[in-house]
Amino acid sequence: MKAVRWTSGDKPGLELHDEPVPTPGRHEVMIRVHAASLNYRDQAILDGQYGGPTQKNGVPLSDGAGEVVAVGDSVTRAKVGDRVTAGCHPHWIGGPPRPEYQLDSLGMTTDGWLADHILLHENAIVHLPAYMSYVEAASLPCAAVTAWTALNLVSPLQPGQTVLVQGTGGVALFALQVARMFGARVLAITSTDEKAEKLKGLGAESVVNYRTFPDWDREILALTDGRGVDKVVDIAGDKTIVKSAAATRKGGDITIVGFVSGFGGGLPPIDILSRSLTIAGTAIGPRENFEALLAAMAMHEVRPVIDQVFPFAEYCEAYRRIASGNHVGKVVIDVAH
Amino acid sequence: MKAVRWTSGDKPGLELHDEPVPTPGRHEVMIRVHAASLNYRDQAILDGQYGGPTQKNGVPLSDGAGEVVAVGDSVTRAKVGDRVTAGCHPHWIGGPPRPEYQLDSLGMTTDGWLADHILLHENAIVHLPAYMSYVEAASLPCAAVTAWTALNLVSPLQPGQTVLVQGTGGVALFALQVARMFGARVLAITSTDEKAEKLKGLGAESVVNYRTFPDWDREILALTDGRGVDKVVDIAGDKTIVKSAAATRKGGDITIVGFVSGFGGGLPPIDILSRSLTIAGTAIGPRENFEALLAAMAMHEVRPVIDQVFPFAEYCEAYRRIASGNHVGKVVIDVAH
Amino acid sequence: MKAVRWTSGDKPGLELHDEPVPTPGRHEVMIRVHAASLNYRDQAILDGQYGGPTQKNGVPLSDGAGEVVAVGDSVTRAKVGDRVTAGCHPHWIGGPPRPEYQLDSLGMTTDGWLADHILLHENAIVHLPAYMSYVEAASLPCAAVTAWTALNLVSPLQPGQTVLVQGTGGVALFALQVARMFGARVLAITSTDEKAEKLKGLGAESVVNYRTFPDWDREILALTDGRGVDKVVDIAGDKTIVKSAAATRKGGDITIVGFVSGFGGGLPPIDILSRSLTIAGTAIGPRENFEALLAAMAMHEVRPVIDQVFPFAEYCEAYRRIASGNHVGKVVIDVAH
Amino acid sequence: MKAVRWTSGDKPGLELHDEPVPTPGRHEVMIRVHAASLNYRDQAILDGQYGGPTQKNGVPLSDGAGEVVAVGDSVTRAKVGDRVTAGCHPHWIGGPPRPEYQLDSLGMTTDGWLADHILLHENAIVHLPAYMSYVEAASLPCAAVTAWTALNLVSPLQPGQTVLVQGTGGVALFALQVARMFGARVLAITSTDEKAEKLKGLGAESVVNYRTFPDWDREILALTDGRGVDKVVDIAGDKTIVKSAAATRKGGDITIVGFVSGFGGGLPPIDILSRSLTIAGTAIGPRENFEALLAAMAMHEVRPVIDQVFPFAEYCEAYRRIASGNHVGKVVIDVAH
Repeated sequence: MKAVRWTSGDKPGLELHDEPVPTPGRHEVMIRVHAASLNYRDQAILDGQYGGPTQKNGVPLSDGAGEVVAVGDSVTRAKVGDRVTAGCHPHWIGGPPRPEYQLDSLGMTTDGWLADHILLHENAIVHLPAYMSYVEAASLPCAAVTAWTALNLVSPLQPGQTVLVQGTGGVALFALQVARMFGARVLAITSTDEKAEKLKGLGAESVVNYRTFPDWDREILALTDGRGVDKVVDIAGDKTIVKSAAATRKGGDITIVGFVSGFGGGLPPIDILSRSLTIAGTAIGPRENFEALLAAMAMHEVRPVIDQVFPFAEYCEAYRRIASGNHVGKVVIDVAH
Repeated sequence: MKAVRWTSGDKPGLELHDEPVPTPGRHEVMIRVHAASLNYRDQAILDGQYGGPTQKNGVPLSDGAGEVVAVGDSVTRAKVGDRVTAGCHPHWIGGPPRPEYQLDSLGMTTDGWLADHILLHENAIVHLPAYMSYVEAASLPCAAVTAWTALNLVSPLQPGQTVLVQGTGGVALFALQVARMFGARVLAITSTDEKAEKLKGLGAESVVNYRTFPDWDREILALTDGRGVDKVVDIAGDKTIVKSAAATRKGGDITIVGFVSGFGGGLPPIDILSRSLTIAGTAIGPRENFEALLAAMAMHEVRPVIDQVFPFAEYCEAYRRIASGNHVGKVVIDVAH
Repeated sequence: MKAVRWTSGDKPGLELHDEPVPTPGRHEVMIRVHAASLNYRDQAILDGQYGGPTQKNGVPLSDGAGEVVAVGDSVTRAKVGDRVTAGCHPHWIGGPPRPEYQLDSLGMTTDGWLADHILLHENAIVHLPAYMSYVEAASLPCAAVTAWTALNLVSPLQPGQTVLVQGTGGVALFALQVARMFGARVLAITSTDEKAEKLKGLGAESVVNYRTFPDWDREILALTDGRGVDKVVDIAGDKTIVKSAAATRKGGDITIVGFVSGFGGGLPPIDILSRSLTIAGTAIGPRENFEALLAAMAMHEVRPVIDQVFPFAEYCEAYRRIASGNHVGKVVIDVAH
Repeated sequence: MKAVRWTSGDKPGLELHDEPVPTPGRHEVMIRVHAASLNYRDQAILDGQYGGPTQKNGVPLSDGAGEVVAVGDSVTRAKVGDRVTAGCHPHWIGGPPRPEYQLDSLGMTTDGWLADHILLHENAIVHLPAYMSYVEAASLPCAAVTAWTALNLVSPLQPGQTVLVQGTGGVALFALQVARMFGARVLAITSTDEKAEKLKGLGAESVVNYRTFPDWDREILALTDGRGVDKVVDIAGDKTIVKSAAATRKGGDITIVGFVSGFGGGLPPIDILSRSLTIAGTAIGPRENFEALLAAMAMHEVRPVIDQVFPFAEYCEAYRRIASGNHVGKVVIDVAH
C-alpha cells in the first residue's frame, strides 16, 4: 500500500512510502481509501504549532472515506463492500468529551487517511448515505461533526433561533448548513463581499463584512432588533470573543471551535455574569453526532461545499491550498486516482 | 410602618420613613418582617457601581424573612401566620434566567426588606422549615440560592466530585455547605490562615492561602493528583478566572457569580477550547431552586453562617460591616427589635 | 361586555351574559378578544369528564387572541394596541410543570376567552408575529404549545429524526407542522384515506390507515427499516400505547398528550426496560415554549390548519363541531363578529 | 486456566474446564480474577428466561474484580499489578444506551468472570479505590452501576429529595446507599420486618412492610405529607408499577430496573399524563457512571452489602443461593481460593 508519513526531525515534512497492507485483527476493519480531506489543524501539525500528542512517523489526516475490503474476527458493524467513513476518535461513541479519546485520534496518534488503505476499529465506522460521494463524505469527520456538536453543545438548537457563524472555513460553512437543517436563521460575518455572496447562496440571511464594519457586533445587534443572536460558533477566538459576546442575547451561548486569530484575548468575567452567557469549547464530537448529522444530511440531501479536489500524487498542493487561506469549503484529496 | 428608603441625589443615601401599611391586593401577601440580610451588591448599589435598574426612593435589600399577617384576594400559596421568606425575583419560579425577571427584583426595582412590612406577590413566597430561625432564613434568598444554582448550572453536582470555592463571602460559604450536602469534596482558597480554619470547620477538606501561595492553582492541582477540580464557583472574576481554569479538570465547569476583583480580565478562548471547559454566569436562581435548597437544609439541619446581627435602628452599622470586608458569613438586621 | 359562562347545576351548560368591563389592576392587561378556539378538553369539561378544578360560573376556553385596549399600573410587557395571545397558565413562564400552575388556568380556574374582553396578568402575554391573523393565533395556546413541548420533552428533536403522529386532531396536526420545522421526518396513522391525504399535504412522508392495517406498528417498523421511530406523540393513550412502543426504536421516547381512547390500558414495564424507552406526559407547556414556537412559525410562515370559523353568536355550533369528531384542524370562534 | 462454561443443550448447565491462558492482543488486558458476583439475571440465563443473545459455551457472570497480570500492545489505561474491575459493556464509555453495547456484554456474548483469568479490552477497565476489597468490587458492575444510573436517568438526584426503593435485592440496596451519598432521604418497602430492620440499618428513614400493608402506596404518601416521593427505583415491574406511580409526586420519575414480579401489567397512560410523570428503563450504564460511583464510594468509604462469599469450587452453591431468594445483598464467589 502507499502511505504518506511524517518524516522525523525538528520540522516535520511528508514522505510517500510503499508498505505491506496489514491484516485486520479482532474487531478491526480494513478500508480501501477513496478520498481524504484536510483541516486547518493538519497544517498546524506540520508547522509544529499543535499542542496535542502526535505519533512519530504517523500517517496524517483525520478525515476520509472509502470501501471496506476486509474485516477481522468478531466484526459486526461493517462488511466487505460497505461504503464508510469514520469518527476521528474511534472509541468516542456517545456522551461528553473525555481526555482519553484524544489519546486515540486518527491522523494524530494513530495512522490517518493519507494512504490508500486504513485499518480501523469497528467502533469508528459510520455508513454513508447512498446519495453521498466518497469525496463529500471525506469532508465531514472533523469539521461537520464539530459544527453539529457546537450548535447543540450548551443547549439544543431550535427552529426560529438565530445563529452567528464566522468566515468561510470548513466548520463555519458546515455550521451554516447544519443550522439551516434545524430550521434556524443564520447571520454571518466575513472579509469580502464575494465571500458574503457565497454565504448567502448557502442560506445565510444576512452577512456583515467585518472589514467594512469593524464594529460588526453592532450590525448583528441591529439585525436582531437589538436583542442579539441565540448562539455563536466562534472560529477565531482571540480577536472575536468580545464582539461575539456583545452580539449574543442575554442567556445565549457561544461555542469556541477555533483559534484562527491567536492564543490570547479573553472575555471579561463580568460580561459572562451580567448577561448570563455560557461559553464552551468543543473539538469534534462523538460518533452518535456523526450519525445524527448523516441522517439529517441524507433527509435534506445537503451537499458539503468542496473547494478543490487534488489527485493523490499532488497531496502537497492540497496542503498549500489550505495554507493559502484562499479556499472556500473543503480541500479534498482523491486518493483513488 | 417603618421603611428605610434611598434618598434621591447623585450619590444615594438611606433615610428612615414612617408610612401607612398598604393593603394586599389580588394574589398579594403582607409580611411582618422579622429579619433582613445584606449582600455585597447592596453596598455596590449605594456606591452607584451597580449596573442594573433601581427604583427611585425604593426600599433596599433583596433578602429577608417574616410572618404573613394579611393576604389579598385569590391567594393560595400562603395564609396568615405562615413563616416565610421569598425569592428575589418574584416571578422566576422555574427554568433558566430571562431578562424580564431582572425587571422585577426585590430591593432593586420593587420595595425590598429593609422595613417592618413588605408586600409580595404570592408567587415569591417560600415557606421556612420548622428548625430555621427568621435570622437564618433572611440570609438565604440571594447568596444561598446563587450557590445552589451555580453548583448545578452547567452540570449536576454529584457525590465524590471536587468543588473549588473562593474566599469567605456569603456565596462562598453557602457553596461550601451546599456542596457538602451533595456529598462532594470541597477545596478552598482564602487570604488568611484564620479564615482557612473557619472554612475547614465548615467541611472544606483542604484550604490554600493565596497570599502564601500566589500560584494557588498549582496547589489545587496537587490536591487533585494533577487532574483538577470538577467545578469552580468563581467569586472574583477579573483576578481569579485564569487560575480557576488552570485548576479545573478537562471537561469541567466554572460558574462566575461575583466580580469582587474588578471588571476586566478574561480567559483566553484557546484555554476553553483545548480543555473542553464550560464557563457560565448566574445571578441568583428560580424559586424552585430555593425550595430544593430548603428541603436539603431541613433534612441535614444545616445552619447558615451568621457574621453579626444588628438591631433595626443600627442598619447603617450593618452596611459598614459589609463595606469593611472583615465579615465571615452573613450580616443580618433584626428588623423586629 | 359579553361573556359566555358555565351555568351551575349537575351538568354544566353555557349562557351568554352582559356585564361591566373590569378595570385592569397592577400588572394586569385588558384585551379586546378577536378570536377564541376550542379543544377536546373544553367539551370534556362540559360533559363533566375532566378531572381538574373548574371555576363556578366561569368563562370557558383557554385559547384566544386579541388587541390590548388598556393596561394597569406597572405593566411593562404590553401596551395599548399590541396584538397578543396568552399562555394557558399565566405564571408558567419557563421550566418544568408544577402543580401550582394548574391552579391558575384560563378557561378552567379563571375566566377564559369566550367573551369579548379578557383580563390577564402581563406574565401571560405573548406577542403575535405580523403575518399571523387573530384567528390563527387563537388556535395555538393549548394544542400547538403542547405539540412543541411534547416533541422536546424527553430529548431535543433533531433534523433527520423520525416522528410518529396519530390522527388529525389539533395536537397531531401541530406536531406534524412543528416536526417539519425542526427538519424531522413525519410518519402518521389515521382512520381514512381522505385524512391521510390531508396529512401528506401538510408534510407527512407516509401515512398508515389504522383501519386497513390494525397492526399499524408493523407498518411503521417497515417504514423505518425495522428500526422504529425516534419519537411518538401519543394522542390516544389506552388503545395506542402498546403499539406506539412497538413502533419506537430502542432508546426512543413517547410523549402522552391525550386520552382520546380511554382511561385504562398500559404498557408492560418489561417493554420499557428491555428497550430503554422513556415515556412521559405533558399538558401544554411554559410561555417560553410558546414564544419559541412563534419565532419558528414566523420564520417559516407556517399557518395553523383551521377547520372552521364560527361567529360569536354561534358558539354552540362550534362546540357541536368539536363533539362531532369530524373536524380536521382547529375549530375557532370569531368573537369580534 | 480454570473456566466455568455453559454446556450446550436445551437447558443450559455449567461445567468446569481447564484451558490455556490466552495472550492479550492490541488494547487488551489479562486479569487474574480474584472475585466474581452473581445477579438475578445470571439465574434467568440458566433458566432460559433471558431474552438477550448469549454466547454458546461462554463463561458466565458480568461482574468481577482482579489484578492485571499482562497487557497487550498499545494499552494505556492499565498496567501489570493494577487492581481493577470492569464495566459490563466494554465499549459503553459515556452517553446514553445504544443497542450495539448489548452485543458486547460480559458473561452474555463474551466470556465473563467465572474463571480464574479474563481477557478484556482496555476500554472496560475501572480502577479500584485503595480501601475496597476484590470481593466488594466484584459486587458492583451490574447492580451498583444500575442503581447510580437509575437514580440520575430522568433528572439528577439532589439532597433533600425523597427516593423509594423496593426490596432487598442487589440494585435496591445499592440504590439506598447511592441515594444516601447524594444526601437524599430513602423510603423503602419490603416483605418482612427483619428485612425492614436491615434497610433501616443501611440508612432508610422509614420502611413499609408490603405484606402487612398491601396498599403500601398510601403509607408512602402519608410519609411524604401526601405529596409523594421524587423518584422510584422500580425493581418488580408487573405488580409494582401502578402503586409506584401512585406513590410518586406530580412531575416525579420512575426508573424501571427489574422484572421480578413478571412480564405483564402496565400503568394506564392517563396516569402518566395527568400527573406529568416520566417512566424510563435502564440496564446498567456507561463506564463513566461506574467511575463516578467509585469516586463517591471512596470519598464516603461506603461498603457494599455482601450476603455470602463462596469458594470457587462451590460456585453451584452460589447459584442456589441466588435462586433461593433468601439473600440480602450480593452473592460473591472468591475465585482466588
